Formats: sequence, structure tokens, C-alpha cells
Amino acid sequence: MPQLGLLPRRTWAALLSQLLRPPHSACIPAVGCHSQVAEAVLTSHLKPHQEKPNFIIKIPKGTRDLSPEQMVVREKILDMVVSCFKRHGAKGLDTPAFELKETLTEKYEENSGLIYDLKDQGGELLSLRYDLTVPFARYLAMNKLKKMKRYQVGKVWRRESPTIVQGRYREFCQCDFDIAGQFDPMIPDAECLKIICEILSGLQLGDFLIKVNDRRIVDGMFAVCGVPESKFRAICASMDKLDKMSWRDVRHEMVAKKGLSPEVADRIGEYAQCHGGISLIEQMFQDPRLSQNKQALEGLGDLKLLFEYLTLFGIAEKICFDLSLARGLDYYTGVIYEAVLLQTPTQIGEEPLNVGSVAAGGRYDELVAMFDPKGHKVPCVGLSIGVERIFSIVEQRMKTSFKKVRTTETQVFVATPQKNFLRERLKLIAELWNAGIKAEMLYKNDPKLLTQLHYCENTGIPLVVIIGEQEQKEGVIKLRSVASRKEVAIKRENLVAEIQKRLSES
Amino acid sequence: MPQLGLLPRRTWAALLSQLLRPPHSACIPAVGCHSQVAEAVLTSHLKPHQEKPNFIIKIPKGTRDLSPEQMVVREKILDMVVSCFKRHGAKGLDTPAFELKETLTEKYEENSGLIYDLKDQGGELLSLRYDLTVPFARYLAMNKLKKMKRYQVGKVWRRESPTIVQGRYREFCQCDFDIAGQFDPMIPDAECLKIICEILSGLQLGDFLIKVNDRRIVDGMFAVCGVPESKFRAICASMDKLDKMSWRDVRHEMVAKKGLSPEVADRIGEYAQCHGGISLIEQMFQDPRLSQNKQALEGLGDLKLLFEYLTLFGIAEKICFDLSLARGLDYYTGVIYEAVLLQTPTQIGEEPLNVGSVAAGGRYDELVAMFDPKGHKVPCVGLSIGVERIFSIVEQRMKTSFKKVRTTETQVFVATPQKNFLRERLKLIAELWNAGIKAEMLYKNDPKLLTQLHYCENTGIPLVVIIGEQEQKEGVIKLRSVASRKEVAIKRENLVAEIQKRLSES
Repeated sequence: MPQLGLLPRRTWAALLSQLLRPPHSACIPAVGCHSQVAEAVLTSHLKPHQEKPNFIIKIPKGTRDLSPEQMVVREKILDMVVSCFKRHGAKGLDTPAFELKETLTEKYEENSGLIYDLKDQGGELLSLRYDLTVPFARYLAMNKLKKMKRYQVGKVWRRESPTIVQGRYREFCQCDFDIAGQFDPMIPDAECLKIICEILSGLQLGDFLIKVNDRRIVDGMFAVCGVPESKFRAICASMDKLDKMSWRDVRHEMVAKKGLSPEVADRIGEYAQCHGGISLIEQMFQDPRLSQNKQALEGLGDLKLLFEYLTLFGIAEKICFDLSLARGLDYYTGVIYEAVLLQTPTQIGEEPLNVGSVAAGGRYDELVAMFDPKGHKVPCVGLSIGVERIFSIVEQRMKTSFKKVRTTETQVFVATPQKNFLRERLKLIAELWNAGIKAEMLYKNDPKLLTQLHYCENTGIPLVVIIGEQEQKEGVIKLRSVASRKEVAIKRENLVAEIQKRLSES
Repeated sequence: MPQLGLLPRRTWAALLSQLLRPPHSACIPAVGCHSQVAEAVLTSHLKPHQEKPNFIIKIPKGTRDLSPEQMVVREKILDMVVSCFKRHGAKGLDTPAFELKETLTEKYEENSGLIYDLKDQGGELLSLRYDLTVPFARYLAMNKLKKMKRYQVGKVWRRESPTIVQGRYREFCQCDFDIAGQFDPMIPDAECLKIICEILSGLQLGDFLIKVNDRRIVDGMFAVCGVPESKFRAICASMDKLDKMSWRDVRHEMVAKKGLSPEVADRIGEYAQCHGGISLIEQMFQDPRLSQNKQALEGLGDLKLLFEYLTLFGIAEKICFDLSLARGLDYYTGVIYEAVLLQTPTQIGEEPLNVGSVAAGGRYDELVAMFDPKGHKVPCVGLSIGVERIFSIVEQRMKTSFKKVRTTETQVFVATPQKNFLRERLKLIAELWNAGIKAEMLYKNDPKLLTQLHYCENTGIPLVVIIGEQEQKEGVIKLRSVASRKEVAIKRENLVAEIQKRLSES
């Protein structure tokens, strides 16, 4: 397993080991409570003096809030993904949440009904972005960039029927890495697969497999099976459902809905059952029908080269040539891939979770040209990490592990055992903040000491600074370790230095 | 000046010192070029075989892409802001980009025309969020939370006339920190002002001032001046324009458009000129008219206490009680504040930049109750950092400084001086990636050595690993420092260890 980015690796490993192992010590069921309540539907009135009818308070269908507990996990996952993208030399990019409607038009064909449009309030017609790929292509064309290796993390929106249990939402986060530019064949493509492997290994989600195919092989296969060219994309969209539906049902859709003859569908069915390694590529080179198709031969040639590079990268055993892989999006032109978890590692009490593919991508050599006034091509290949589905898996584990996750990073709490010490606490805490120390106190004039110490225990704050009458008289401060309950007196003026020393040791 | 969060402080300081000082050595004008091109308007055709009319490629009005150079700056600024929020014990939260339309209705009154609505595509009526405050209040009510200290970083959308030169956009990023809960007066409020001071000092944007007022003082002033209660919010919205318009113009709007009598407007004008420190609070306590108003007295009492706490925090000299401060948003109920930069520190060749307020906030004790079925109150106070305007300032400086900002973090480049070494390079680079080393190579079968070395110089990669025939024969690798051009031979098996040693030293 590859080691990961220098900085976040340790904290991540610590978190993961906290999350992924069965419960053994702390047993406070603190996690995920917000998200459960968040689905509750409340009726509410507006300002009391208004005669408005009651309305329902909820969040839009298919969306969710991320509670502080969920945010901790999300941030760790995103840190790890982004640090991998940076390890491969990618630059950051951000694009607006919406684009001109016509920017998105005709890029998604079968799926274009899923695009969220904005209301016409005068001015331009706008739509929420459907992915990060089309905005990237638009950016390249608009800025006349001929090459770029970029990553982008951001939300995208799709009006799909949400099946929230599978980690599918109408608003979800994508993490994309793409390499644009005219390069020698399969070198960037192989790097994209290497990145998927590094991320999925690093996240310790269990065993996984990356299915690989090529759009030219798909189209070549359709051609030699007798699919009319006008039906290529529609049949491709049907075949893309093979991970959710049986071949029987997909075949039915092809024949009954898309008007394919049963013989043609059956010929496709034979190919769609084929999956394997390098030997399957060799076999397809010899296939009497497929070997007659120029497109398919090009695709097979590239896949052969790809497998050679993947072997050099040491990841060939994670990759599977799968003739049933089609990928729904319209813009792919070459290699396509999709990573699936082979099984959710089930722990005691954990329900099995079907999350589908957790990463996918491919080559799209024509998309940028659609935006360029002169139709100049900028070949691209990229990948998208399905972080939302990965969150679902880790969240599920958190729920069964009952581990308490710290949602704050506070290092020191400023407390007092006596009344009338608010002003002293304010001076003290300002000193800590000014020294860069993460510090909290209760927003009460005269809180009880026990309340203050409980707050530290409940929120995981390791150190307490205590100031009271006696300490003030002696010019000292008490420094207490929450874990050991040991207290030591420290000269007031040495407080910051002493705390920094303690924090650097821990 | 307060020191800042332990981790990002160094890198930030390095970046700032690189950005904020006049040019002296490197002179490559590399920055901001994308954003300029991004405004260009291109005509384009779709797929050649289609008979679609040409359309224009651009991004929506008032939005922008952030280029890699801009992303580096944005990330540094956000890191610093978030590390300050965490230093004060805040938890993270995320909410959807859109809310049910009715969730936002009647929360912004004067500004509700600026809300982006989504098209009715069947199902719920939705609107893009206008700020992060209303979604936070909705979250608290929906989850029945009585207290929470949270931060949130995210985009919000407002259909304003964009004046891009001032750093105002229709899509922009907000960084919010809020404290919800029933606490003793002015303690959380003072912490919000402390946070603004820490962030603005830490970002080294030059001198700043935080104007403070209280909605109860504003309303009390309106009442004693003779404004009819039904016009309070409309007059408040006019007064809020005093930072962009002269009193003369604001007075005209109040009289001509909002139907206020000239005498009443002039009485407001007298108060609106008052600004000062604690002594002005004392003066207003004695004001013959204002001292008769119960609301105003409550506000003055709280401000007095606030100033006491601000003095203990050591920031009182940054705060100014300003009776002209009104804040446009409808939901404020108590203390309000707005931070302005006193002057943009102008460097040689730098154009003065008017960015208006860079942080603002206040107390809103009634907002959560609007969402609660039983109208339960959860008092809140918070702040929002205008990061977009801060970006504008730093960007402007970058343009005049001509400093090259690294947009990647690559540490090692894998090169070869000979043909037919692609496979060796692939094996080598995979080894580096697996060890967590940030590495790149060119995606060419046989690149020229000079091209490879130029790439390192142009992108700031410090180390090059060179593999060629001779090295392969001797079982070594050459490690080259790009800066010194010194090369040393290293045993192939010691390469990763040697690189890690070099990187830890630099």
C-alpha cells in the first residue's frame, strides 16, 4: 500500500484507526445525531403577528446538512484526496456553481433532463453545473489553454431520484483530477488509474477493482453486433445500467424501449459477459468480428499499452478489462474506467452497504473543441472521486463504532472556581489567543467549577488554566491536565511558554 | 499584533512577504493572466456537423473562475480565517447551496429581490442561499439545538449589479462564525469583535477600524427623531448606504423616496454624524432625547459593557461607536458592527482600491424563533469575513509585484537524457509517489533533457532525478538541485531515503 502525503497522513491514520476498529473503550453515542434529526419535518409559524399559514421546515429533497461530526470526517477524506492530487503535480481551479444554460446544453444528452435550471429573472439563462468536467473544458477553451493538470473540489447538482441510503444525493461533492494536452498515448491515462489506486488504498476502504474499457471498443462492438449508428449512445446508456440491473432487464430495455432486434442484443450480451486481464485483450485482438473493426482495434491497442504501464506502476492486478463497462456520460471518446469496492468490510453489527462505484473517469478528446471558436482540439483524460459514497461508508462505520469524534480542536480551557473572575478570565484568554493557542471559556459571568470541568471532559479539551483568589494573590495560575486531574502552579508570566511546551510534547 | 495559528502561520508569512513587498529580484509577470482572458467573449460553433447557430462562450455575469494563481492566494486566506475560527473553539457545518424558497422568504425584506430562484421543474420551489446566517438558524431550529459555536465557509449568491473592480460579485465566498445560545450579556459579542481583529491583523491588510452600533440605538434614535415605526426598516436601509453615498444623497432618498419629513431627516442627520469611543456612549446616555427611549438605553448599556470587555481584550482602540452604522440586513436585533480598512497601503505603481467593509456582523436574537414551531428563541451573534474583498486587495498587489507564485507543490521531477527510458521513468516515479513524494515527469516517450530541465525551472520544482544508460549500468541515479545545478550520484536503492532527507532539510 502506498504511503500518503507527509502532512495529513498521521492525523488521518489516527482518525481511521479510531473509526474503523470495533469499540473498546469510550462508548458515547455522539455521532450522527444531527443528521437523523435533520430529516424530521417540523411545522412552524412565522413572526407571531403575521397571519401566514403554517409552513414546513425542511431542507430540499436529496440534500443534507453536514453536522460537525460529519464535517470532521469529510475534511479528513478531502484532505487525503487533495494531497494525492497535489502529489501528482495538479494545480487548483474554481469555477462558478452555475454556467450559462447553453454551456451545458448537448454535453450530457441522455441525462440533460437532470440539470437544474435557474428561474428566468431577467438577464442570462443559467443552470447549476452537472459535473466539474464541462466547466473545466469551457475554462480551457475560454482561456485558450493547450495544456493543464488541474484538480477541482466542489459541489455539483443533479435532479436524480435520491436514494439516500446508497450515498446518492441531488447535491453532492466531486473531487476531479484531469490532464489536458496533446501527449504520447496512455501515459496520462495510466497516471489517472494510479491516482485512483493511491486514493482508494489510502482511505482503507477494503479491496477494490477498477474496470477498464474503451469507448472505441464499445462502439466497435456495437457496430459488429449490428447496432445502427444512430442508436449507439442510447444503447450505451442502457449498457451503463448493468451494475444496477441484470443483463435480462438491460436486454429488455434495449429491445422493447430502444427498438433493438433481439439477435443484436444477444450478440452484445455475449461480449458484455467478458472481463479479464491482458489475456482478454489478446483474445479480443483475435475475435473474428471485433478484429474487423478499425475503431475497436485502436482501442484494443491502447488498452494493451495501458496495461503495460499499469504493470510498471505495480497496479495491474487491480485493473480488469470489462467489455460491459460503458459509462453514461456522452463526452467520453477513449479509455473509460470505474472503480468498485469488492465488498464492504463488515464489522459486528454493521449493515452491508451497497455504494456502487466510488471513482470513475475516462478520456474526452472532443469536449474542449465544442467550446473553441475554431474547433481546436485539446485532448483530456481525468477522474472523479465519489467522495459522497465514501463518506457514507465511513459514516456507517462511525454509527456502529460509537466512538466519539472531537469536533473542535480547543487545547486549553480557562476556568475559575470563584465568582467575579470574568475580567481575569477575559484577559487570560486573550493572551492565549494572541499566542496562537486554541482556547475556550464559558460565556457566563460566574460559572460553577464543576460545569467548567465537565465541559472539558465532554468536548475533549486536554488542558485547563484555573485562576482564582489564591492564584491571583500569589501571582500564579493553576494548570490542570483533564486526563490525569493533576494540577501544578505556574507563574503567571510563564503561562504561555509552559502551555506551548506541554502542547509540543503531546 | 496577535500571532496566528501554529501551522499555517509560517507559510502564510512567507507568502505575504513575497506578495506585499515591492519587486526586487524575480520579474516574471505570470499572475492573473487567466482572469483577464476570462472576461474575453468568444463566439463558437458546436459540433461541426450540427446546424446550430453560433453562441457566445462566457461565464455568467458577476461570476468568475479562480485561476491556479488565484487559488493559491484564496487557500492561504481561507486557511488563516478558518484557523482563527478553530482557535476560538468553533465546529464546522455545511448546508446545501439551495434552500426551500419559503425558508428564505421574509428574512431579507428590502433585499429579497436579490435572491436567485431556481426554475420550477416540478417538485419543490427552491432558491440559492443569500447568506450563511439564515441556513444556520434553520439548522438550529430543525435540530432543536439550543447552543452551538460554529463556522461555515461557502459560496452565497446575490443578484446585485456587479461592480467587479470593487471585489463585489454575484457569486462570492463567505466565512462565517456564530455563537448561538443564551449567555451572559456581551461576552460572545466581544469575542466576535476579537476574532475580526485577529483575522484582519493576521492578514496584514493595513490599519482598520471596526464601527459598532446597536439596532436598539438605531430604532430608538429613529423613534425620538419622529420616524413612524412602519418606516424604521426602510429608513434603516437608506442609512446603511452612508458608506457609499453622501449624507446629502441619503437624506434626499429618505425624504423624496421614503416620504420622511425634512425635519425628521435632519434630526437623524445630527445623530448620524456622531462617532467616537466610550466617551460618546456616556454622552448619549445624557442626550436629552435619546435618554428618554428605553430601547436606546438598553443598547447603550450593552455597548458600555462591550467596551469594557474589549478593553480587557486589548482591542478597544480598534473599535469606534458610530451612530450612522445601520447594517442592511433585516434580522439584526442588538449589537451590529462593520470593519473597514482605513486605507489601502499603496505601493509604487499600485492603484488605490476601494473595497468597502471587509468584515461585518451582529446580534440576531429572533431569527431562530422564526423557524421554531413553538417560537422558542435561541439568541445568536456572529460575524462574516468578506474574503472576496480581501482577495481583491491581495490580487491587486500581486499584479503590481510581478512575483511568480508557485501553483503546484511538486518536489521532484523524473528526467532522462536518453531515448527509450519511459519505462524506467514510470517505475521510478511510482516509487516516489508510493513514498509520499510529490513528483512529476513529462508525458512524452522521449522528451529532450533541456525541455525537462526548463519545466523544472518554470514551475519551481527544486529536485531532479535523472536516469540514463550510464546510471542504469552503474545501478545509480543522479540527483540534481535545480537551483545550484549540482548533481550527485546516489545508489538506486537509497534514492527515496536520500530525497526525504533533502526535503526535510529544506
